[in-house]
This record gives sequence, structure tokens and C-alpha cells, in this order.
Amino acid sequence: MIKKITIAIDAMGGDDSPDKTIHGVSLFLKNNKQNNDISINLFGDEKKIKEKLLKYNIRSDAIKVIHTSSVVSDEETPLTAVKNSKNTSMWNCIKSQIDGDSDISLSAGNTGVLLVISRMILKMMDDVSKPALAGLWPNNKGMNVVLDLGANIECDDNNLVDFAELGSALYKSLFINEQPKVSLLNVGSEEIKGTETLKKTFKRLSNLSGENNFLFKGYIEGNQIMSGESNVIITDGFTGNIALKTAEGTAKYITDHLKLTLTENFLTKISLLFSYFSLRKFKDRLDPRKYNGAIFLGLNGPVVKSHGGIDALGFYHSIDLCYKIVKGNLMKQIQNNLSHLKSDN
Amino acid sequence: MIKKITIAIDAMGGDDSPDKTIHGVSLFLKNNKQNNDISINLFGDEKKIKEKLLKYNIRSDAIKVIHTSSVVSDEETPLTAVKNSKNTSMWNCIKSQIDGDSDISLSAGNTGVLLVISRMILKMMDDVSKPALAGLWPNNKGMNVVLDLGANIECDDNNLVDFAELGSALYKSLFINEQPKVSLLNVGSEEIKGTETLKKTFKRLSNLSGENNFLFKGYIEGNQIMSGESNVIITDGFTGNIALKTAEGTAKYITDHLKLTLTENFLTKISLLFSYFSLRKFKDRLDPRKYNGAIFLGLNGPVVKSHGGIDALGFYHSIDLCYKIVKGNLMKQIQNNLSHLKSDN
Repeated sequence: MIKKITIAIDAMGGDDSPDKTIHGVSLFLKNNKQNNDISINLFGDEKKIKEKLLKYNIRSDAIKVIHTSSVVSDEETPLTAVKNSKNTSMWNCIKSQIDGDSDISLSAGNTGVLLVISRMILKMMDDVSKPALAGLWPNNKGMNVVLDLGANIECDDNNLVDFAELGSALYKSLFINEQPKVSLLNVGSEEIKGTETLKKTFKRLSNLSGENNFLFKGYIEGNQIMSGESNVIITDGFTGNIALKTAEGTAKYITDHLKLTLTENFLTKISLLFSYFSLRKFKDRLDPRKYNGAIFLGLNGPVVKSHGGIDALGFYHSIDLCYKIVKGNLMKQIQNNLSHLKSDN
Repeated sequence: MIKKITIAIDAMGGDDSPDKTIHGVSLFLKNNKQNNDISINLFGDEKKIKEKLLKYNIRSDAIKVIHTSSVVSDEETPLTAVKNSKNTSMWNCIKSQIDGDSDISLSAGNTGVLLVISRMILKMMDDVSKPALAGLWPNNKGMNVVLDLGANIECDDNNLVDFAELGSALYKSLFINEQPKVSLLNVGSEEIKGTETLKKTFKRLSNLSGENNFLFKGYIEGNQIMSGESNVIITDGFTGNIALKTAEGTAKYITDHLKLTLTENFLTKISLLFSYFSLRKFKDRLDPRKYNGAIFLGLNGPVVKSHGGIDALGFYHSIDLCYKIVKGNLMKQIQNNLSHLKSDN
């Protein structure tokens, strides 16, 4: 019998849910007709979910609906969530991993609450100092894994070394047979640059570097994130969050102005007739929906956070990410990687 | 008699100097024929400089050449610079401000050395806790001033409050009659987000906010830097450096791929015939040479650092920046702004 990959989805989280989430599920099933190892548990209002399953014509045996009447509200903060989130769709979605009913959880709901209750329910792995939020970020040769993107505002060298092991395990699970190349984000590439924490981390990562683990490529600066020379970028959650959002803002600024430029007069509109298909490919490549999904690493089970405002296509990409993560055996990869730390000081 | 604006230029700093620097001077003089308040002191090898003045056909009375035989080498570090940099073109260029011979200094040489010897020669202003490196960054409505871009890796609330006063003084000197709108870069816009240092700074900037000074707009995230809602962005030197370089890398990634897209086949090449002039305007807008020049603030005299690898056009923009800064009376604006701090706790 084939081993099923079971994805638990909080059907109620994010804008326009459950319409968006169920539409995303339908896109995922359509694109994975050839795979018979898929199983999806949907958590939320049964009546609403079933309406949407009908709307999107989903009659798959792979789907199971688990009714929960309450939802985590947008106003909830991490501080109030503990008291108010029990038995919400998000809570039960994560809890299903502990119960052995799912391999991974996905939600587009409130980020702060998701981080808090994931940690509360799944608990931290024994050898991890702090869990981290990792994301995908395109580079010239393919894709980077970047972490931490905001779970930990302040980090010491233990945290950063853990992030390197967690991030390269994620990279290996997503890009089978490829070698993770780890870099540490800094304000210069010389060894003497940066904070004391970064200098300590540099030394420890140099010792951990090796063919069986990850190759440590040293420091990189912000302008090298997308060069493709490394593919696992390590930083604290404050810096990572600023870098990611600055990149998003810059991309938006440029593409907005490009759009204005290419529609500003009659001649440029004619030019679009000739470049339409090429520009569409260009736009596709930059489409943020393709990189939707941040992965919460370091707990006894993986949790993926979809952007709350993303549409169905974006949500589909985050389901796909969940599927690949489990297929690539992330939890096993993490355990292998963490074993390297036993010999590290 | 008209008050001259005297710019001291290290003619030897950066790649391809003095050719690049003198070519930049010629572009500046050509574009400022109508202004008779310009005076330029060129520091460096007199023979080489005079050759280049001939080459670029510069025979202006506005130019004075001050011979110095040595140059700060690229290998020099801030640690060795103190001993080895005396009487170099960079050293004498900055020293001319203390001697009352120049109003501002400009160099495309070694950044670390420039920061160290500027501080040593010009000394910090009495009421400033740390000097900062500020830069220009385009936004949807015009231009941001962003600081610190890397002079101070770690900053407390005193430093960040000083940066807000220094940055808004710079903004006022460059954009006369416009109101500086200060924001603090953070990982969220809610008041509870971020480090303790940011929370303290938030409170103090809220108290300093006012029509006669700057308007404090609160926290912004990385994706809002270019929105135009604020125009003076405050952050520590580590975060500012990472944000700036990440934006540069993202812009390069996108424009490189756009270039490939628009030349990938016969059809797209035809499209370029129709959109050529519009795309050239688009490219112009993003041209990093237009934003060349980081301003070292908080010393008893302004120092501008040009990118070392920039070409003559980029160097011209940094000379132009020097001219505007002095014309806008930066040092007086800074003194006015720092007086606000006397009543602040």
C-alpha cells in the first residue's frame, strides 16, 4: 500500500476563505491527477466548506472535512490567542499532526497566532534553540531558502547555527540531490565585518561545512542574495523581514513603473503586441504567488503559513509546497542535520 | 560680492581617477554655466590632474589644483589609515574645510578610511552621539533620505533620535520648503512591534514631532520605503546597509531579466523599436548613478562619499549633490534641528 501524504488545511484562514482555500485545493488536485498519494484534511465550517467543494466540483476521495465551529479572528494577538484559539479551525488543523492524522499543516490565518499555537501544540524539537520562519526567494540559478523571516527579532549564534541546519534540511527536502550552500547575511564580505554574534556564527559554520552537510560560503551582502552563489541564506528575524519586504517593495516599484511606461502612449502599446508573450513569461517569473508559503521550522512537525491576502492560485502554490516538503522527507532531513551539531561546540 | 560655494574634491579616489573625477567636474561645470557661485578645489597629483583638465577642455577660473603626492591605497584599512593617510589627497581634501578653504568634501576613495579620517579631522558636533551615513533613495512621490547606511552597526535610541534630526536637516537643505516626514524602519507598523531600542525611539520621536521640525509618521516596513508616505527613513547601520543593498540586488535582478526578455527573439526586438524612447526614460529613472553620493552627517562639516566604481556621470551627480547641500545650508539646518533635542529627554 502506498504511503499517503496527508496535508491538514485550515480552510477558514485568510481573506475570502473558505472560497479561496477550496479553490486552491481544486487547482492542486487538477495539477496532481497523476499522484495517488494525496490526502487532504480540511478544517472549518463543514456547511460552508461543502458548498465550496460543490462549487469547485471537487468529489475526490482524497478529501476529508473536519467540522470546527470557531475561527481565529484577525483581531486576536499572540497574547490573547492561547485563551481564545482552542478548537478553532487553525488549532485543530495543527493538532491533527500530534494525533497522527496529518503530516503537515497549512493556514493563511493570523501569523502571530499561528506561530504561538503551533509552538504550543507541536513543541520545539529537543536540539533546537528557537524555531524559525523560512521562505523561498528566487535567485539567478533557481531558488534560495531564506531564514529567519521574522519569528525571532533577536538571535544569538546558537540560533543562527540552528537556522543553518534547519534551512539546509529544508533545501534538501525541496531540491533533492542538490547541495545546500549556506551564506550568512552581513554588511561586508570580509571576515572582520559585522556584529560579534555574526563573527561567532561564521566560525562555527566554517567548522560544520562539509560535503555530507552543507557547504558554508561565508558572508554575503544584500545585493548578492539573488546572485545564485549560495542557496540557503541565514539571518536574524529582524534583518530577514526587512530584507524580504524591501525586496518586495522594490520589485513592486519597478514593475509598476514598467507597466506605466509600456502603456504610456500609442507607440508603446503597439510594442506590446510584439512583446506580449515574452513579457508574460517575465511577469510569471516574478509572480509573488509562486513563492507563497513561509515554513515554520524547528517544531515536531512542519507548519506552512500562506500569505493572508493571496488569491487561490497563490494558495495552490502553498499546498504544493506542503506536498513537496513531506515527499522530500523534511523531518528526517532535519534530524540528520541536527545530529551534526552534537559534535559542534 | 557673491558668496562662493567651495567644493573640495579628492581627485585621486575611486577607479579610473583622476580621469573619472575630472570628467565629472567638466560635466558639472557644463550643466551649471548659469551659476557664478561655484568654486572647486582639486586635491591630488598636479601633473595628472592638469593633463585631464586639458583633455576635458576645462579652463575655468573656478578651479584650483592643490598638489598632494600620495593617495590612500585600496588596501588601507580604517586601523592602518590613521598612520598612513596624512597628506594624502583625501586627507588634505577634508582638512581644507578646517582651514576655511572649502565648504564640503567629496571623495570616491576607500569608505572605511574616509569615515575614520573625516571624523578625526572634522570632529563630531557637540550635540551628536554618533555620526551617520545618509543616502538618497527614490520613492513614488520623489526622494527619500535614508540613514544610517552602514557607519554604525549597533545603535541605541540616542543615536536613532540624532539620525532623525540630522536626516531631516539634510532633507530640508536638499528640498527647500518641503516638510520632512520621518519614519522608523521596523518589522511591523503596530506600536508593540520591534526591539526595545525601537520602542524607546518611537516615543521620543513622537514627542519631537511638530510643524517646525519634522512630522513623525511612526513605523514603516521594508515594502513601504518607496511608497512616498514618508521621506526620511531612520534605521541602524546594519539594517540600513542590508536594506539598501537588497534593493539594489533586486533592481538588478529584475532589470537584467527584463533586458533578456526584450531581446530574446525577433518579435521582442521589433517591439523595442516602438517602445525605445519610453523604455529609455524608464531606465533613466532607475539609473543608480543619479543617486550616487552618501552623505556623512554629524561632523563639523559635510563629507560626501561617491561610489568608487561609478563612472564620470555618476561622479558628476555627487558633485551636484555637494553643491545643493551647501546651497541649502545644511550645517545651519542641522544646528537648528539639534536645538530641538535640548528640551528632549
